[in-house]
Amino acid sequence: MPRVFSGIQPTGDPHIGNYFGAMKNYVRLGEEYGKNSIYCVVDLHAPTNPGAYDPARLAARTFEMALANMAVGLDPQKVIFFAQSHVPEHTELAWLFTVITPVGELERMTQYKDKAGQLESVPAGLLMYPVLQAADILLYKADTVPVGEDQVQHIELTREIARKFNHAFGETFPEPRAVLAKDALRIPGVDGQGKMSKSKGNTLGILEGFDSIWQKLRVAPTDPARVRRTDPGDPDKCLIGDYHKLFSDLPTIETVYVGCRTAGIGCVDCKKMLMEGIRRELTPVQERAAELQADPDRVRDALATGAREAREIAVPVMEEARERVGFLKL
Amino acid sequence: MPRVFSGIQPTGDPHIGNYFGAMKNYVRLGEEYGKNSIYCVVDLHAPTNPGAYDPARLAARTFEMALANMAVGLDPQKVIFFAQSHVPEHTELAWLFTVITPVGELERMTQYKDKAGQLESVPAGLLMYPVLQAADILLYKADTVPVGEDQVQHIELTREIARKFNHAFGETFPEPRAVLAKDALRIPGVDGQGKMSKSKGNTLGILEGFDSIWQKLRVAPTDPARVRRTDPGDPDKCLIGDYHKLFSDLPTIETVYVGCRTAGIGCVDCKKMLMEGIRRELTPVQERAAELQADPDRVRDALATGAREAREIAVPVMEEARERVGFLKL
Ligand code: SF4
Ligand code: SF4
Repeated sequence: MPRVFSGIQPTGDPHIGNYFGAMKNYVRLGEEYGKNSIYCVVDLHAPTNPGAYDPARLAARTFEMALANMAVGLDPQKVIFFAQSHVPEHTELAWLFTVITPVGELERMTQYKDKAGQLESVPAGLLMYPVLQAADILLYKADTVPVGEDQVQHIELTREIARKFNHAFGETFPEPRAVLAKDALRIPGVDGQGKMSKSKGNTLGILEGFDSIWQKLRVAPTDPARVRRTDPGDPDKCLIGDYHKLFSDLPTIETVYVGCRTAGIGCVDCKKMLMEGIRRELTPVQERAAELQADPDRVRDALATGAREAREIAVPVMEEARERVGFLKL
Repeated sequence: MPRVFSGIQPTGDPHIGNYFGAMKNYVRLGEEYGKNSIYCVVDLHAPTNPGAYDPARLAARTFEMALANMAVGLDPQKVIFFAQSHVPEHTELAWLFTVITPVGELERMTQYKDKAGQLESVPAGLLMYPVLQAADILLYKADTVPVGEDQVQHIELTREIARKFNHAFGETFPEPRAVLAKDALRIPGVDGQGKMSKSKGNTLGILEGFDSIWQKLRVAPTDPARVRRTDPGDPDKCLIGDYHKLFSDLPTIETVYVGCRTAGIGCVDCKKMLMEGIRRELTPVQERAAELQADPDRVRDALATGAREAREIAVPVMEEARERVGFLKL
């Protein structure tokens, strides 16, 4: 049985880009792979990102992301779900991997070059990020890693680290393969200025109040061809059209396509129809989130149990790696 | 009460350079500082040294260095004595330190530049070495670190890491100071070609058989001025003279100085006198080593107890550091 590993960034405030690009996928994979699907809130990675990291908020954001994933439907009893910092073997294995990972390979990573290029002083953690990421995956001997396109190079490096370790110390780790998350990840931001992302402030949060979501939709740009109510438009050139494809049922989508192209509906009507789809999709998520917020120990207990389950796999793998590298066993 | 931390490289086969430069010093400091002196066989560092590291021998060398230090007189009941790989908090804290350590600082380390310059492909572990070293020291909030001159720059970086951590996350770590080991460390090799070192193959081992030591001394170069038995010499220009200063009692040293300068003694006599001093110094060490070799569980048990004692300090410090950086506590 293959084993799936996914890292969840503790960004807090998950938005519909995260929801369709990753979170719903986790639920689906969890139902398929059960305890062979491993979901890890990668809080140890967070401080390597000087722009987005705030020590005063990391714990809250870790908790929020755990809660949000559970609200979306990730069932901690079915899968293994935990926070990275609660399993010390991640950093221990990462250290062993530094021994076989060339500095030059790390310097060549596109993400490193992009981020380092923007900094006066580059923290070593940014350079070492993919080494810890390799440890995250290989600590569970995971062979399948659902990722966005920007992470494919890191998974390639993980494969190389597995190969180098196996070559230097004997067959120990599988070479995991990246599984690309579907294009839904490229959900446009509500400002119509490219991909939805927290740093651009153009998100619709999955736990955001519906009033707030509506205020954003109300002023969102639509197909510029529709200057007047009577001008026809093209839903494929409109972010509201894109959102309908995610949230609305087929009859509604048809109504929108026909109505927009024939100027049979106005953009405000169209946005109201979208809002209905959003309510239908997110109401159960927000209800479950409210339940969990009222009983935060359910989230904490789930993470504690998850860390124990993770260590049941990680400790023996670490033991094996430690022996391979040759440390004294007492 | 100050707390002393010393890292012991698991090189195996300790020689009289290690003995006078470090090992005897550990015993002395241990008597002074008791459980506030922390001795750690730094086996996690070993694999970062591609030249000297052999996975098939690391465990044995770690064991040997532990045994040798105990044979020299380090008392595991009085001090804290353990192997680094048995305390997972070392790598955990090192990861947190990568976040505040600039890559540029690491690239500027002299030891890194020297070692990296000799390699085709530079492992990341070599670059990260001083980060783990900082974690080794600060995990115990040690403030005093006896080191050789080549490590002073790394201790300076450790101070900077402590400062940066305290600045970013609140006062947590002391700034440790390096205490230079005395010049005895610069013991000449038995070939007269500079400093005694394992890589040059010019060592006298502290656990080496006396016959073998004698064979090396017999052919060791002496003051080149003494071409004939009747030529006077200068013990300050002769490595045998240097060794006498370490091993012989004052009357013998005086005999050698007068006899050499007046051609009153021959070099073979002089070497035999030295051999007596070596026997006197090393016989008890070798006897204790033989006892420990016959009962290896004494060494293993000492290391296991030491790791438990080390973690009694390390776990709460790590807990504190983890909270400072902001990880979710369950
Ligand atoms: S009718 Fe809907 S899809 Fe067409 S332009 Fe207006 S908002 Fe966009
Ligand atoms: S007498 Fe001793 S000190 Fe003098 S040159 Fe000979 S070996 Fe060296």
